[in-house]
Amino acid sequence: MITTAEIKSVKSLHQKKFREESGLFLVEGEKLLHELLHSEWEIERICATSSWLDKNKINQGIIINEVKSSELERISALTQPNEVLAVVRQRKFDFNLKTAQNGLTILLDDVRDPGNLGTIIRIADWFGVRQIVCSPQSVELFNPKTIQSTMGSAFRIPVVYTDLLPLVHDLKKEGIAICGAVMEGKNVLSFEWKKSTALVMGSESHGINARLSALLDEHVTIPRFGEAESLNVSVATGIFCAMFNRQFS
Amino acid sequence: MITTAEIKSVKSLHQKKFREESGLFLVEGEKLLHELLHSEWEIERICATSSWLDKNKINQGIIINEVKSSELERISALTQPNEVLAVVRQRKFDFNLKTAQNGLTILLDDVRDPGNLGTIIRIADWFGVRQIVCSPQSVELFNPKTIQSTMGSAFRIPVVYTDLLPLVHDLKKEGIAICGAVMEGKNVLSFEWKKSTALVMGSESHGINARLSALLDEHVTIPRFGEAESLNVSVATGIFCAMFNRQFS
Repeated sequence: MITTAEIKSVKSLHQKKFREESGLFLVEGEKLLHELLHSEWEIERICATSSWLDKNKINQGIIINEVKSSELERISALTQPNEVLAVVRQRKFDFNLKTAQNGLTILLDDVRDPGNLGTIIRIADWFGVRQIVCSPQSVELFNPKTIQSTMGSAFRIPVVYTDLLPLVHDLKKEGIAICGAVMEGKNVLSFEWKKSTALVMGSESHGINARLSALLDEHVTIPRFGEAESLNVSVATGIFCAMFNRQFS
Repeated sequence: MITTAEIKSVKSLHQKKFREESGLFLVEGEKLLHELLHSEWEIERICATSSWLDKNKINQGIIINEVKSSELERISALTQPNEVLAVVRQRKFDFNLKTAQNGLTILLDDVRDPGNLGTIIRIADWFGVRQIVCSPQSVELFNPKTIQSTMGSAFRIPVVYTDLLPLVHDLKKEGIAICGAVMEGKNVLSFEWKKSTALVMGSESHGINARLSALLDEHVTIPRFGEAESLNVSVATGIFCAMFNRQFS
């Protein structure tokens, strides 16, 4: 059972405004719920069909609403809703310098597309990147499309939101190499990485903003052999991560 | 001016059924129209605002509907419609063996997501891959989301739809190496490519189908350093293309 008031409250989390007010967000689908239940994230409520509830053990303290598929359709943010939806408490992460001193950190300068952010989190989780930093104008981690496209990696990889300029100043003092993905720079296919690297990815339309660009130690490029104007930012991030790992694995 | 019947006819192209019946599809937005107008694709109709029409020269023989933004919103398949929409004649491409004999060809085995197909076409266009082959069960090239996410590369890269099994048999006879992206295979970061290669990418959920998999000359893997279960298929394709180009550039 789920009341009309509860449906309204869950549905409000489709909107950023209400996610921010409540500090909650939505997670949908069996695959994501599986990852969520094995994580440290705090679940407030689970709305699920009886068949999902029969198959899964839920901790005490979580509100459970057994719902019909038709009810799930009404509250879902997906076009093809699944058997389960959870209301989860948001977490904020602080930047971890120690993590950044040992390996690759990804810095996203105003990446606006939720699918791209989600895919980059999944890429980080594949390649062992243990921290992502987003500029405050980047798309919100808790957007349902972002969460969905992480395929569960959102519950493993800390995503920090902070101003990139002061952070990059600090990282430079610590001897961490600041590399930016640009249209004209050194060829990433033969680039020599430093072990402690922060990789800055800009938005597809605007690139890295000028003040941040001025702080880069290295400008790196994925060479173009055809005619496309640009690569998708998540695809580009995947190629950079692969090349970094190629050198250190 | 655009009549109600014309609006209805344009809107019907949001649906695959009517795209197939008419042999037409939709292209939207200034960026894509720019690429389209510089291509060999045949435009039937352009619906655009007066400001777009003032800035662009349109060939004779194309029906022009000057429309208001509000009318464009009614016929658009986008959530944020642009200033222009075109109705374009579909093209079918035959497989080109000569192209396949000299470089990389991408074979997609049942890739279902339109965003992924579009992004892969854009990747091909970046890396100089000159032909993509899709199994018949793959998502349709003319799906508005596919076209949109190619960013115009759809008008440069031929996408062939054909059964992959007989094609792969033929390619093997021609001495073209058949490499498949799999979860456990040779490390792509140190893999030695043959100059004539067909790269088979499967769907994220099902991988490469068994009968096709049995024909692979090489099984290749992007090594995992973290915990994500898989990589997005377009990101993986980008990494394979980058590594191929690394060897031959």
